[in-house]
Amino acid sequence: MIQYPIKRKLHVKTVNYANLGMTLESDIEASNTYYLNHDIAVIHKKPTPIQVVNVSYPARNKAKITEAYYKTPSTTDFNGVYKGRYIDFDAKETNSKTAMPLKNVHPHQIDHLKQVTKQNGIAFLIVHFKPYNEYFLLPASILFEYWDHQDEEKGRKSIPYETFKKRAYLITFGYQPRLNYLKVIDDYLLT
Amino acid sequence: MIQYPIKRKLHVKTVNYANLGMTLESDIEASNTYYLNHDIAVIHKKPTPIQVVNVSYPARNKAKITEAYYKTPSTTDFNGVYKGRYIDFDAKETNSKTAMPLKNVHPHQIDHLKQVTKQNGIAFLIVHFKPYNEYFLLPASILFEYWDHQDEEKGRKSIPYETFKKRAYLITFGYQPRLNYLKVIDDYLLT
Repeated sequence: MIQYPIKRKLHVKTVNYANLGMTLESDIEASNTYYLNHDIAVIHKKPTPIQVVNVSYPARNKAKITEAYYKTPSTTDFNGVYKGRYIDFDAKETNSKTAMPLKNVHPHQIDHLKQVTKQNGIAFLIVHFKPYNEYFLLPASILFEYWDHQDEEKGRKSIPYETFKKRAYLITFGYQPRLNYLKVIDDYLLT
Repeated sequence: MIQYPIKRKLHVKTVNYANLGMTLESDIEASNTYYLNHDIAVIHKKPTPIQVVNVSYPARNKAKITEAYYKTPSTTDFNGVYKGRYIDFDAKETNSKTAMPLKNVHPHQIDHLKQVTKQNGIAFLIVHFKPYNEYFLLPASILFEYWDHQDEEKGRKSIPYETFKKRAYLITFGYQPRLNYLKVIDDYLLT
């Protein structure tokens, strides 16, 4: 909420509902909190891996990190458990109206999602097409199809929006939970 | 490795094989790497959560974190997938010969392990009794028994070594994998 200074002239803001409020990541985290508080699932975002180089102790029991660097994560951002099953996914946003570029996905994330799939975990992406404000759950198997063929003659460097419409699953955006992606898993992916 | 100054008299070190080499955490990480490389399971240690306060950019594309602090983790250290099932655990070491103190476990870890158990995940501790060099897989249900009664009149603040011998599962320490804790899960906990 923006707090205007009292004396300042109040002006009317144009609210763009498409971008209101939250980012995709915080929408997912809010959904996870809802799932956790209602005993539906335990899914957390992993902390960003950081290489700590120097730590100082300005006060007793208070370590202050004074030099550190971001490391490349070796996995996806989100994982957890739903009905005993292992859930693993990453979140991607695109401004494109026609396709999600494959460069939005890192090779190590592909490796990880393939390893998870081999172990019979439920692996996917949540993809936000911002121009349409649509959220899709894309099963990892479809991602692998495009990824593995991208360097071939007929391959392409992106997954078409049409593929999402036809083969991915639309996620309901609501109040609580904001992104009810577990409903898609219930309806289509729990085997 | 301690580097002695060249002129100092060299003395023979007594090697204590019980503590040779690795810590519990690195033994587990080496086991997880083995499992991963052999397509047996995908289990990773979560990064330590760090609150970043200040970042500078001394060079293009190179973010240097100049002020940050350790945060309390909200979950356990290890999770992943084995045969489709969700695995979640923490590692504890004790120098005691008689019991593992409950203060080695944080309340938020108990909360998390209970949430995981409700979702039918496989939750446990790996506990290293250093005086015996024995490693146990302690199912979370036994941990909860002791935790939930610790403040009662007959409660106690630790889990006796005898309980480990009778009700927990000894983990084989070997060459590859170093700590074959998935064998215990195969033999006793997969339902």
